[in-house]
Amino acid sequence: MDIQQLVRSLKTQNDSKIVMLVADGLGGLPVEPGGPTELEAANTPNLDALAKKGTLGSMIPIKPGITPGSGPGHLGLFGYDPVRFLIGRGALEATGVGFALGPNDVAIRCNFCSLDADGNITDRRAERIPTEQSAPLAVKLREVKIPGVEVFVEPVKEHRFVVVLRGEGLGGNVADTDPQRTGVPPLQPVASDDASQRTVEVAQQFVAQAQKLLADQPKANGLTMRGFSVKPDIPTYQDVYGVRAAAIAVYPMYRGLAQLVGMEIVGQPATLSEEIDVLAEAFDQYDFFFVHFKYTDSRGEDGDFPAKVKMIEEFDSIVPRVTALSPTVLVVTADHSTPAKFASHSWHSVPTLLAADTCRPDPCQAYSETEALRGGLGQFEAVYLMPLTLAHAGRIGKFGA
Amino acid sequence: MDIQQLVRSLKTQNDSKIVMLVADGLGGLPVEPGGPTELEAANTPNLDALAKKGTLGSMIPIKPGITPGSGPGHLGLFGYDPVRFLIGRGALEATGVGFALGPNDVAIRCNFCSLDADGNITDRRAERIPTEQSAPLAVKLREVKIPGVEVFVEPVKEHRFVVVLRGEGLGGNVADTDPQRTGVPPLQPVASDDASQRTVEVAQQFVAQAQKLLADQPKANGLTMRGFSVKPDIPTYQDVYGVRAAAIAVYPMYRGLAQLVGMEIVGQPATLSEEIDVLAEAFDQYDFFFVHFKYTDSRGEDGDFPAKVKMIEEFDSIVPRVTALSPTVLVVTADHSTPAKFASHSWHSVPTLLAADTCRPDPCQAYSETEALRGGLGQFEAVYLMPLTLAHAGRIGKFGA
Repeated sequence: MDIQQLVRSLKTQNDSKIVMLVADGLGGLPVEPGGPTELEAANTPNLDALAKKGTLGSMIPIKPGITPGSGPGHLGLFGYDPVRFLIGRGALEATGVGFALGPNDVAIRCNFCSLDADGNITDRRAERIPTEQSAPLAVKLREVKIPGVEVFVEPVKEHRFVVVLRGEGLGGNVADTDPQRTGVPPLQPVASDDASQRTVEVAQQFVAQAQKLLADQPKANGLTMRGFSVKPDIPTYQDVYGVRAAAIAVYPMYRGLAQLVGMEIVGQPATLSEEIDVLAEAFDQYDFFFVHFKYTDSRGEDGDFPAKVKMIEEFDSIVPRVTALSPTVLVVTADHSTPAKFASHSWHSVPTLLAADTCRPDPCQAYSETEALRGGLGQFEAVYLMPLTLAHAGRIGKFGA
Repeated sequence: MDIQQLVRSLKTQNDSKIVMLVADGLGGLPVEPGGPTELEAANTPNLDALAKKGTLGSMIPIKPGITPGSGPGHLGLFGYDPVRFLIGRGALEATGVGFALGPNDVAIRCNFCSLDADGNITDRRAERIPTEQSAPLAVKLREVKIPGVEVFVEPVKEHRFVVVLRGEGLGGNVADTDPQRTGVPPLQPVASDDASQRTVEVAQQFVAQAQKLLADQPKANGLTMRGFSVKPDIPTYQDVYGVRAAAIAVYPMYRGLAQLVGMEIVGQPATLSEEIDVLAEAFDQYDFFFVHFKYTDSRGEDGDFPAKVKMIEEFDSIVPRVTALSPTVLVVTADHSTPAKFASHSWHSVPTLLAADTCRPDPCQAYSETEALRGGLGQFEAVYLMPLTLAHAGRIGKFGA
């Protein structure tokens, strides 16, 4: 029995409200020895006030030393062991464009490629065809018709697009058709179990029809398929925690990840301020709110320290609107660190703040990486954040008599 | 191999003496923002002196966010994974009244209930019959005789009593007979494996005879059975750690829990002072002493902050009598927090103190929740307390060459 199963067996109901604010990639690093991190450089009076009142901890996203992608990072935050609950690459790509996968779906990451007259690959990425050229091609592939199967095609970016095959009994265990080199034709799809043989047949029909539709194209006249995957078998938030959960996010990827764990996507906000509008409007209808803020990560990925600082200050500025709703538990955290110094995700721990009347206060005086090291929640792995949050909301019963 | 199995494989012998003082429910919370916890409010010069000399840590009883009952809380302290070693409800109830379960026993929590002329339940708790009326009825049920089986009946409180069936081949996998509603008769016991079918037959005979003995009763003329369970299969302290372990406790529940892990129950103390008398007398005869102090938890459960503070001060006052015995390792801890603010157990970590000549000192200047956050033992789960304790006593050999 892992921690999530234990929590599931002990969950209780009450009328508490929980808000989890996720500032994507919030954790950072100093750019110069002795300097502040992005969060320490930012002026965050509201978060600091919360830190004084609440409890801090230093959260490890996956395990020490492991840098998470967005999928595992969020699954961990949501309390699902990210090493156990794996999201297939096709499913993650579909999720990333906001496609809501169903139980009869197989999602596939596809690449446009360039083929010569003999059908051999000359460029595996169709010369990195620009999105404005590739997106209409992906849409054109929606003309493919396969009896008994619904076919969805979604553009992604440059040479990448997603195909979702929807039909009874389609397995997801099919090997990639990208040969990983040029001068040879795409591989035939190969199934590694019986259920996936039907997927192979459908995929072959898709490729045959697609090649015809693309025959005239100068660069993108072929395709390869990778990361065949079904919807991951993940128990829902309602089942595991007994909460009605809402997700508020601007970007499709995070809406999709929340949907995978059974959260309802509410609103269509375009800014952080609009996200808080949605939060306030939906506050009576749900027990748990996941609110995602993207731009701390984006500016970290850009390697732009001052811009990330500014995004953190914008994030801080909406905190009073959230506390005004008087949630029972307010959590502020991130799915991982994205130090501007690295211009990429990192494994470093994430300062995490939990504010509730049921907190044991600690000496922390500000919300920062350094203060979090002496926080009352100590150092903990992300999968324990939901148990801690639910405990502070009075939603976990006693274990044993 | 879990940590206990690893320790078991590395255990060594010496003539060290270990004392573990458990102040039940010691951890607490401030009642007002910025205020002290019960432990911080208490005047504890002796514990503070120990804290200066020893090492502190912030101990998580089970896992982050999980509030333990007494059973799992103590199993964790004793180094047994409390999620793996589950004590059945019947076994815990028998343990709680000081009944020493044997290997051929099935323990059952029973309720007196009220039945109408048709045998339907009118009150599932026999109108919460007072203990002074119910206890003689439970004793009366000792007249039940079943061939080939020894029957024990122990009063508990109000409508509750315990039945233990002792005989060869009795399984514990039997469903509750309490239908959880009125207007229907008690359910028949149902076995979920072959060994438990014999238990069902015995239980049916018990109920039939008991009904006759109770027929004249105005309220408690029936009974239901719940939590059928055998003695949990737990390796002994002697086997796991190689120590001769003694338990010193006033309350039957804690004597029972210690007995489940193979500790010997010594003395019949009625007060903390008498417990230390017993400790001093038995000091030469055992290697490990579990000394349990109940009233920190009791006053916490009462929601009485000042009274809990007073109990902590009483606990502190006996410390010099313990240190005078010069134990090799002295541990001061708790099975969980019981903040007066909650008037119940909680998930919050427990300040834990380990004093030994082999400690690496840390900056802690007092024994408190806040000081423990910067303690040398860091934050750790309860199952690691015994390994740490044995290590400081020189009782764990090197792992690998």
